Amino acid sequence: MRYQLYYWPMIQGRGEYVRLALEDAGAGYDDVARQGNGMSDMTRMMDAGKGTPPFAPPFLKAGKLVIGQTANILLYLGSRHGLAPKAEPGRLSVHGLQLTIADFVVEVHDTHHPIGVSLYYEDQRPPAKKRTEEFWKERVPKYLGYFEDLVKGNGGAYVTGRRVTYVDLSLFQIVEGLRYAFPKRMAAFEEDIPRLVELRDRVAERPNIKAYLASERRIPFNEQGIFRCYKELDA
Amino acid sequence: MRYQLYYWPMIQGRGEYVRLALEDAGAGYDDVARQGNGMSDMTRMMDAGKGTPPFAPPFLKAGKLVIGQTANILLYLGSRHGLAPKAEPGRLSVHGLQLTIADFVVEVHDTHHPIGVSLYYEDQRPPAKKRTEEFWKERVPKYLGYFEDLVKGNGGAYVTGRRVTYVDLSLFQIVEGLRYAFPKRMAAFEEDIPRLVELRDRVAERPNIKAYLASERRIPFNEQGIFRCYKELDA
Repeated sequence: MRYQLYYWPMIQGRGEYVRLALEDAGAGYDDVARQGNGMSDMTRMMDAGKGTPPFAPPFLKAGKLVIGQTANILLYLGSRHGLAPKAEPGRLSVHGLQLTIADFVVEVHDTHHPIGVSLYYEDQRPPAKKRTEEFWKERVPKYLGYFEDLVKGNGGAYVTGRRVTYVDLSLFQIVEGLRYAFPKRMAAFEEDIPRLVELRDRVAERPNIKAYLASERRIPFNEQGIFRCYKELDA
Repeated sequence: MRYQLYYWPMIQGRGEYVRLALEDAGAGYDDVARQGNGMSDMTRMMDAGKGTPPFAPPFLKAGKLVIGQTANILLYLGSRHGLAPKAEPGRLSVHGLQLTIADFVVEVHDTHHPIGVSLYYEDQRPPAKKRTEEFWKERVPKYLGYFEDLVKGNGGAYVTGRRVTYVDLSLFQIVEGLRYAFPKRMAAFEEDIPRLVELRDRVAERPNIKAYLASERRIPFNEQGIFRCYKELDA
């Protein structure tokens, strides 16, 4: 089946976790809003008057199904494409890890938007600075330390063991994103997460991921996305 | 099967969405950390050195399974206890809605903690005030308007139609929580969400929920939880 991914066309954002899974799986998909009238198609699907139209992008169309929320899309794709166990215990376990990543992504975003998404970054610089301090002091060690321990406890290759899951692809994106947004802070922190750095390298070398990253399908990081590089926040 | 719920004993918090589902279903469960040595049991389970120990409470033990993340627990319980469809399309759809509620819950929390969870509210009052303004101006209308439209579009009883799901139980909690935390703001806003207010009443009248709310198992709202009543934020 060919999928249709609906997500904002100019950023990696939350759509990127889905793109990485689709790319690694070699699944056929259209990145709808990056083509022709895709943006208006996306808007129209969110305005459906009945059923359960998605709250926000990303959402995935899989035949008749429309699936909203990043982690939910990965739950659907994972066991179909060898990126998560098929049996319920493993599926739920991997999904729980992805939901923890989703929580972390919100906290990444709020480093530059602690007051409100509808305001500009420039209107919330002092609280952004404070939130970023807290983020690096308390939150990054807590979240990434947790995943580092999982990799260690489960043999050192991927988070749940020898087989890759979509959680590993997402952790690749987390490491890449933190490197982009906070190059100095992240360089200093990486010695605390050697296994996640290795995991990042292992994912980057996967043939489909490697091809994707070298293609135009991979949107570069920028200051409209989740991971934004503001020098004053990296000081 | 009797379940074991692990959650902080003094607050409703995120555990409450699970409690409401277990109670409505009439499922047997132990609220572990509220009994005997439950708190140390909870800590020990999070310190397991291998497998995938949960990142944070709440988590649910169901036989040998340990399921982390509120929405994931509800995904597991829902189709087993008549609180979500059994077939995959409906299950994913309801789960996506719950994930949107989870996003909203983070935003509720951040009204009083916009800078960091490890800091006291008293140390982040001015940004809390600003974030709360944004929350009520932009976010509450967006999220609750979305759910109001779903109830309207699907017949007016519950979010997905005539049958209750765990999402409806969670929306009950959202309405109750906003009434507790922001009595003035919520009183003014309720005219915009008449169907959600009716849904709240419908849930409150469900016999098992009614019995639960009248019991000591229901922890009162307080200023350690997600929904906190600070007068200056309700002005």
